[in-house]
Amino acid sequence: MAEHMDPEEFRSAGHAVVDWIADYWTTLGQRPVTSQDPPGTVVAALPATAPEHGEPIAAVLADMDDIITPRLTHWQHPGFFGYFPANTSGPSVLGDLVSSGLGVQGMLWATAPACTELETVTLDWLADLMGLPERFRSTGPGGGVIQDSASSATLVATLAALHRASKGRWREVGVDRRYRAYTSTHGHSSIEKAVRIAGLGGEGVRPIEVDPVTQALRPAALRAAIEADLAAGEVPAIVVATIGTTSTTAVDPLPEIGAICAEYGVWLHVDAAYAGAAAVCPELRWSHAGVEYADSYCFDPHKWLLTGFDCDAFWVADRGELTEALTVMPEFLRNAATESGAVLDYRDWQVPLGRRFRALKLWFVLRWYGAEGLRAHIRSGVALADRFADRLVADDRFALAAAHPFSLVCFRLRAGDEASAALLARVNASGRVHLTHTRVNGRYTLRLAVGSPLTGPEHVDEAWELLASAATDILAG
Amino acid sequence: MAEHMDPEEFRSAGHAVVDWIADYWTTLGQRPVTSQDPPGTVVAALPATAPEHGEPIAAVLADMDDIITPRLTHWQHPGFFGYFPANTSGPSVLGDLVSSGLGVQGMLWATAPACTELETVTLDWLADLMGLPERFRSTGPGGGVIQDSASSATLVATLAALHRASKGRWREVGVDRRYRAYTSTHGHSSIEKAVRIAGLGGEGVRPIEVDPVTQALRPAALRAAIEADLAAGEVPAIVVATIGTTSTTAVDPLPEIGAICAEYGVWLHVDAAYAGAAAVCPELRWSHAGVEYADSYCFDPHKWLLTGFDCDAFWVADRGELTEALTVMPEFLRNAATESGAVLDYRDWQVPLGRRFRALKLWFVLRWYGAEGLRAHIRSGVALADRFADRLVADDRFALAAAHPFSLVCFRLRAGDEASAALLARVNASGRVHLTHTRVNGRYTLRLAVGSPLTGPEHVDEAWELLASAATDILAG
Repeated sequence: MAEHMDPEEFRSAGHAVVDWIADYWTTLGQRPVTSQDPPGTVVAALPATAPEHGEPIAAVLADMDDIITPRLTHWQHPGFFGYFPANTSGPSVLGDLVSSGLGVQGMLWATAPACTELETVTLDWLADLMGLPERFRSTGPGGGVIQDSASSATLVATLAALHRASKGRWREVGVDRRYRAYTSTHGHSSIEKAVRIAGLGGEGVRPIEVDPVTQALRPAALRAAIEADLAAGEVPAIVVATIGTTSTTAVDPLPEIGAICAEYGVWLHVDAAYAGAAAVCPELRWSHAGVEYADSYCFDPHKWLLTGFDCDAFWVADRGELTEALTVMPEFLRNAATESGAVLDYRDWQVPLGRRFRALKLWFVLRWYGAEGLRAHIRSGVALADRFADRLVADDRFALAAAHPFSLVCFRLRAGDEASAALLARVNASGRVHLTHTRVNGRYTLRLAVGSPLTGPEHVDEAWELLASAATDILAG
Repeated sequence: MAEHMDPEEFRSAGHAVVDWIADYWTTLGQRPVTSQDPPGTVVAALPATAPEHGEPIAAVLADMDDIITPRLTHWQHPGFFGYFPANTSGPSVLGDLVSSGLGVQGMLWATAPACTELETVTLDWLADLMGLPERFRSTGPGGGVIQDSASSATLVATLAALHRASKGRWREVGVDRRYRAYTSTHGHSSIEKAVRIAGLGGEGVRPIEVDPVTQALRPAALRAAIEADLAAGEVPAIVVATIGTTSTTAVDPLPEIGAICAEYGVWLHVDAAYAGAAAVCPELRWSHAGVEYADSYCFDPHKWLLTGFDCDAFWVADRGELTEALTVMPEFLRNAATESGAVLDYRDWQVPLGRRFRALKLWFVLRWYGAEGLRAHIRSGVALADRFADRLVADDRFALAAAHPFSLVCFRLRAGDEASAALLARVNASGRVHLTHTRVNGRYTLRLAVGSPLTGPEHVDEAWELLASAATDILAG
């Protein structure tokens, strides 16, 4: 037999790794948020080949400190305000550790029954916490599943929509008509990618214009696009509406969009990747008005709900449409439980066959925080974003670029695009904060997104002070 | 601010979770391999809603013991011989724990430089360890990346193949011709699924017959299928050849298949999901003869190379073809490093946008085991399979159903399908071992796949004794 790490060696090395992480979190706020080293620095610091003889974990941790950690963007840093948050938490890390230790494969119910059932239960719990429609619960014809990302959720929703739009033909003959997908010009890039993967081509996506004030999809333009496609003999298959767009967290008007989808028999997928987490707070649930029209809906607990990547929560109103689109049953997977019809086999809800026990990290988070802890986290993010926005609007060199209903604030210097781009570069070079950018109505716009559990008022205030001071330098220059 | 788990509480709870895993591994061999409880047992044992108030980690671990762990199939159990192994190891668990703790997002080089560069390096190391062709190394036009699974690897290879076969049209117009994919009748079910996802339909897969003795694809039949499709105006896009099929670990003849692909300009993807790991041993590298013809190749370190799910290693000979097929560049992802052309952005190599730091678990495994440790693990699995097969062939009630070049042995009772199916049910009901089945040349066949780090000669011998004794009962009955 080969020599493997025995449980006692694992115990001792495991304690050391846990300590390493605790120390990392303790010192995180003192590190630069991003690395300033050029491409190739890590490659150059590592040997060209794997070692012939094994090395202890301590040696690997030493290389973590010397080579790897300094060349990261620290997404959990209290000064990380880029993109959307990808926050995690102690309970999530521990739940995922249990999953790694068990090393089970949940592709079928039969290959790890508790892996499937705990996932069903945690997704039902989440649906309840967020006030999602009854029809998404597993107790009826719908149900929830964990995908790796909202990208994959959009892809499987698109496949189920093609199955429906083709009346089942697509499974056998593929894309033999010009199926079309609709989303706003601020729909996420993963929508175009999913549509391309599904074989509809870039032309398959119809970008629908947004209202220049709300940045939300204009229902009249959606209706016009669907009617034009129908008149041209094309087949409207899916509309992807967004709650909380990536650029500005705009909320598409689901009641109007849903009515249009119902009228034309088009699948409605709702992408709430970031802002869905807000629905755990009743006072933010206005953002989900009309979600009862959705055939499918997803959000990412790995963005703003303290659960480490990857964890996208995806629900469908009719799981049969999804699994008919995706199932393939070879002999080696046949089993009595599947044939009984009494179980869910989540491999038929996703692209890959294999499945990690991802429900554990979500379950640990739901248990450790409780509903009240999750609401407090969301409210903290919204309050910190409001605090930042208040400072910004009090300074007439700055302008808000959009509303900030959640924890993202979009803003710019009134002095124009060049000054705004210079401002971003300058504050990011400080190493104390990291912000990213977008374009809103064509204009360069900075984004400050709050979400790290470590971020407090002092960090948001520091970000503001760095911005105000950099603005002074830039506008003087 | 919300209340979060602070680093000291994490340290203490983390030690408890590490201890829980060490204890699980210590006692694993005494547990039944599978649960005998009916569907719904876990659902019934859990509350209907998430708790309002948070609970300590100790309470969650207690529920793990009472509710979850007893209802698992224990894939790391020394008596687990089902499917293919999905083995993990202490170093892998620890590497993945570091990844969880860092919580970085490696979608772009710029969003976590070391996450991208360590992945590039570890995949180059692996290619070197396995003797893969130079053109798969990142130092030339190719390179490696971690996918979640071989299913996703096949999907992205198919997309790159469509990009090539369409001369770039597919990106814009989608599937507007009858593209075809070819694999043997023993190609994995994920190939049909990938082809369906890509919009080619079930008809898009041409199943090619296998040799009834070797169970490997017949090159003459492949050539005939391609020529027939060309004559009918269809477009051959991709051939998926397998090293180590799921049913029997047959090895398709790559030199002949590769020559046919080269002649017709068809993309060759090689799926070595399970058996690719064998290539770390020079004496098993005969299985990879002809891999230099491949446009893409993958294997799963999460199957037989001690790295926890998900970790599929995927290489392409020309990364440009892959990234052209998959890239979409919205404003919010634009950055100087990408525009310099000096970095790899792995989001363009895969379906999802987000990326976990998965290279860490692979790096920890490569460092802790060293090349010699990995070879010893593979050799141990092959030797144990040989040991089992030796006992089997000495008993004339049993017959081997196929060759066993790696760590899988396929066999049946000479008494027929019904007796063989009864044998599987009976040994699995013992709770001491878990085997699965397939069909070979139409006949019911048991599969015994060795791979868990905990499996030693005594476990393989126990499996044999259970089978021999159950056979006596069944043949007497």
